[in-house]
Amino acid sequence: MKIVALAGGIGGARFLRGLRAAEPAADITVIGNTGDDISLFGLRVCPDLDTVMYTLGGGIDEEQGWGRRDEAFTVKEELLAYGVGPSWFGLGDRDFATHIVRTQMLAAGYPLSAVTEALCDRWKPGVRLIPMTDDQVETHVVVDDPEHGRRAIHFQEWWVRLRASLPAVTIAPVGAADAKPAPGVLEAIRDADAVLLPPSNPVVSVGTILGIPGVRDAVAAKTVVGVSPIIGGAPVRGMADACLTAIGVETSARAVAEHYGAELLDGWLVDDADAATAAEGVEGVAVRSRPLLMSDPAATEAIARAALDLAAELAGAAG
Amino acid sequence: MKIVALAGGIGGARFLRGLRAAEPAADITVIGNTGDDISLFGLRVCPDLDTVMYTLGGGIDEEQGWGRRDEAFTVKEELLAYGVGPSWFGLGDRDFATHIVRTQMLAAGYPLSAVTEALCDRWKPGVRLIPMTDDQVETHVVVDDPEHGRRAIHFQEWWVRLRASLPAVTIAPVGAADAKPAPGVLEAIRDADAVLLPPSNPVVSVGTILGIPGVRDAVAAKTVVGVSPIIGGAPVRGMADACLTAIGVETSARAVAEHYGAELLDGWLVDDADAATAAEGVEGVAVRSRPLLMSDPAATEAIARAALDLAAELAGAAG
Repeated sequence: MKIVALAGGIGGARFLRGLRAAEPAADITVIGNTGDDISLFGLRVCPDLDTVMYTLGGGIDEEQGWGRRDEAFTVKEELLAYGVGPSWFGLGDRDFATHIVRTQMLAAGYPLSAVTEALCDRWKPGVRLIPMTDDQVETHVVVDDPEHGRRAIHFQEWWVRLRASLPAVTIAPVGAADAKPAPGVLEAIRDADAVLLPPSNPVVSVGTILGIPGVRDAVAAKTVVGVSPIIGGAPVRGMADACLTAIGVETSARAVAEHYGAELLDGWLVDDADAATAAEGVEGVAVRSRPLLMSDPAATEAIARAALDLAAELAGAAG
Repeated sequence: MKIVALAGGIGGARFLRGLRAAEPAADITVIGNTGDDISLFGLRVCPDLDTVMYTLGGGIDEEQGWGRRDEAFTVKEELLAYGVGPSWFGLGDRDFATHIVRTQMLAAGYPLSAVTEALCDRWKPGVRLIPMTDDQVETHVVVDDPEHGRRAIHFQEWWVRLRASLPAVTIAPVGAADAKPAPGVLEAIRDADAVLLPPSNPVVSVGTILGIPGVRDAVAAKTVVGVSPIIGGAPVRGMADACLTAIGVETSARAVAEHYGAELLDGWLVDDADAATAAEGVEGVAVRSRPLLMSDPAATEAIARAALDLAAELAGAAG
């Protein structure tokens, strides 16, 4: 069985761990968001790719959901002692090594997809992890800054430093329109038995991946099942509501399904708290409700199982 | 009083600490060797400059004489876990930050002298530290490798990995012939009341600095006092004997003085173990013997004091 999942960071990575447990024999390809990549200290940092890689490879800090376990911040503190920041982005010592290796390989001319494959040689995530594109795409956020007026800032500055406290006027994945899917992305989607949308941020994670020219159409041609990242009108974690508000979408499980649209989505899993959505239905989309809190590995595996079952049911109905 | 010192790494740095203590009001300019600089992991590492900066700035690992105190090697271990080496060069986590800042500034177009000044803003070494040149000079060593035949390797590979176990056929400061002294180097020498040669390696540290076009002549025009790095026929630390052998110079206090030459050197301090050299004299050079082991700060200060006294005596005799 061939499965493709489009993944952002923490929520996506945890879902993927459940997916791998639910279907150990499956051939899983993960298309990772690179829109929140950032260059810091001359190093290329790919937070979402690394969160997937560390989570599936057993290196993640389980408590915080990102970064390495048993992490110290000596290098960062020393950089700050030189007056070199930013202070608001948490790069740990172990994590630094990943970025140093990546930056060296990129400087040597390897595309990000090859770099990611090389890094995964160490972590053995049990899935094939491909960045959505080898081209540079960076999500920028336009805000009305009380001090500096309207300006565009890097997504990470908005997300991590400001904690999305300034409303986003626009969220723009700079470079996306001219980006090409990385080698293997379209092929994996084409060959997939099902495409899953984990409970990642529908705007700045899954939305950014779908925005790479060619990806949305390729995905829409398949049996697609999504897992709602919104439970009872609020994001399970993160600040997806701030992103949804920026694009004029209500923070609800139903609204996210409607935003993805019936052209893309075949099935949609919502939490029991949103059972009304399942009862009323979303036009053109099969909606099911079940517990969606990824509270432990067993619960997460059951959610992934439910998504696969729904995909199989819908593929059977279509075939 | 204006003093210039040409410094390599550990021995030079310790002597400089004694010099600063001996003459706290003096205006001291240190011209640092950059011939053992190396690029590792995409980062520019300047071991001698950093040893001087850390030693005078209070950040040095006193036990080993190089690198930072309270150091861990997490980043290096993680790099090795990715299969990225070399394993033989010890870059600690705190040290990494220095190289990251330096590399970023160099990439931004700042010359090494400006970068060094910026790094020293943090360390406040109490001296002006200038690299010998802003141009890239790297000492390479030609060896007869039993496996690979005759080949040139970076000085650090010879020194750190091989511990100078293969005899050096040639020691070549690549780029030195075309290098220009960094801004301030010739001016500092010209304005100095005395130029001191600390007990650094006479070949790959002091010799490399003197090999930058214009430096030897500028130094030779001044009152110059050197401190022998050889005590009783052996280097106090390091493997200076391997370097001296490579250039056909005997490992003795007298031979090093003769190698520097009376055109350059006015005074030469040797250890009491080499009192015979003082008794016999070296033609054209005033030789004095005294204890030269920099066993503690007081002993080191006394050595620096003796070098300054000899310089004053010789300057007085000349004037």
